[in-house]
Amino acid sequence: MNTHAVMQRRARPTFRVRYAETDQMGVVYHANYLVWCEIGRTDLLRELGATYAELERSGLRLAVADAQLRYHAPARYDDLVCVEAWIDRVQSRTVTFGYEITRVEPAPAQRLVTATTRLIALDSRGAPRTLPPDLVELLRRHAVST
Amino acid sequence: MNTHAVMQRRARPTFRVRYAETDQMGVVYHANYLVWCEIGRTDLLRELGATYAELERSGLRLAVADAQLRYHAPARYDDLVCVEAWIDRVQSRTVTFGYEITRVEPAPAQRLVTATTRLIALDSRGAPRTLPPDLVELLRRHAVST
Amino acid sequence: MNTHAVMQRRARPTFRVRYAETDQMGVVYHANYLVWCEIGRTDLLRELGATYAELERSGLRLAVADAQLRYHAPARYDDLVCVEAWIDRVQSRTVTFGYEITRVEPAPAQRLVTATTRLIALDSRGAPRTLPPDLVELLRRHAVST
Amino acid sequence: MNTHAVMQRRARPTFRVRYAETDQMGVVYHANYLVWCEIGRTDLLRELGATYAELERSGLRLAVADAQLRYHAPARYDDLVCVEAWIDRVQSRTVTFGYEITRVEPAPAQRLVTATTRLIALDSRGAPRTLPPDLVELLRRHAVST
Repeated sequence: MNTHAVMQRRARPTFRVRYAETDQMGVVYHANYLVWCEIGRTDLLRELGATYAELERSGLRLAVADAQLRYHAPARYDDLVCVEAWIDRVQSRTVTFGYEITRVEPAPAQRLVTATTRLIALDSRGAPRTLPPDLVELLRRHAVST
Repeated sequence: MNTHAVMQRRARPTFRVRYAETDQMGVVYHANYLVWCEIGRTDLLRELGATYAELERSGLRLAVADAQLRYHAPARYDDLVCVEAWIDRVQSRTVTFGYEITRVEPAPAQRLVTATTRLIALDSRGAPRTLPPDLVELLRRHAVST
Repeated sequence: MNTHAVMQRRARPTFRVRYAETDQMGVVYHANYLVWCEIGRTDLLRELGATYAELERSGLRLAVADAQLRYHAPARYDDLVCVEAWIDRVQSRTVTFGYEITRVEPAPAQRLVTATTRLIALDSRGAPRTLPPDLVELLRRHAVST
Repeated sequence: MNTHAVMQRRARPTFRVRYAETDQMGVVYHANYLVWCEIGRTDLLRELGATYAELERSGLRLAVADAQLRYHAPARYDDLVCVEAWIDRVQSRTVTFGYEITRVEPAPAQRLVTATTRLIALDSRGAPRTLPPDLVELLRRHAVST
């Protein structure tokens, strides 16, 4: 029995595309999807009881070390989009998140972007550090890989 | 004889419009002109020998307290634009900057936006404070009004 | 009896502050409030049954002609903020919107920014035009001033 | 003799980090490096005599299909940064660009971000198309790979 799968938690914040996020091609400018990934990541951490704002106040920062994005279809102004975010992998100093961004409205639903970002733990002065053990445990409990 | 006018200093940074700055109307999104005003303001302070990065490190922050913008004509992707910035008025706790944003290329030159922003002095915790006397003197020496 | 007041409609979209919207002062960068005003304006038009995306498809564009902002207190990352938007005044070619941006969480609620923007009607090539009469009537019915 | 290497053209636009580009971690927000990559790409095309603004007016759009970024060190407000951009590979429908973003000032120079983006050719309605043969030839002449 796979008890692990039961634990997997995924955030799915949903919001409308802002006019400011479009460009003259009439679609969302490609850099904005990284901003949306962060919205999913923030929501996921909040659902796990580890709000990023509190982590930062405790002296931990999570800085993006690398990012990969695949653009399947464009989002447009006023579309309702959903950012699904999950924890892919947790190591002592890094955590990797996965994302799937989908257009919910107008129908039909369509996959827009898939992405991963690897974040590295830094202290408040920007130096590398390890993740706190209880955070590692919490993230691992909800991660896809182990 | 107006020796004051001789002292007036104006910054005129010039740069090309970024694709990310356009929106689906095919012109620059209106909030970006506030970003450009800050480029002019930063350049002006640097020319006066008071780089904002150093002011911040010394514990002074200048936060925008109010802003007025008039949009005369739109900037477009890849236009060469110039931000003229000057000091309008200096008080013990605030300094007001004026801006004129112009399209330089393609010709003919055209006025795009005029704006003013009033900035208020804060300490590093965000509480109001007075401007350092030597900064007040420096800014006043180059201000349009007295 | 003031039947007019009964008609006034106000939008109040609520959302969390994104990390991307902060700057190194630790608060929301001041240009982003103009983006938020647009979120309120878009919501208000949608509630009135005149979604801006549809107006644009019908050949009407509303371009910001001027903007005034007063910054009372800063928003911070992860704050829950509310943008109240209303129609202030409608003329044959322009419509003026008012805004009040408030922090809802963490308590206590606090007024952050008040603003107005005047928008001008353009056709799909960017030339000035009049607002469609039925839109003028709709907007006036819900405006604060007459 | 490698005549190919002689032809390689690289753009190296240089500019100062804007305050708006920082976040509350005190460094440049990670999505902005994609905006900077586009500045390098735009400059490179201009140097090759194929300004992107003109390509778009001729009915060709280049949309980002995927992107990879590695963040080595953070840029900070007012840093002078340089975006080196080159053509990595050209196919009938796609072109891949490489980027290296470096801090020039303050010294010592430091590599900040390396990235690649693959762009796909679209027509003015957003449907896939092939790149014009003369553009393929031009880009290949200056590409790193063949």
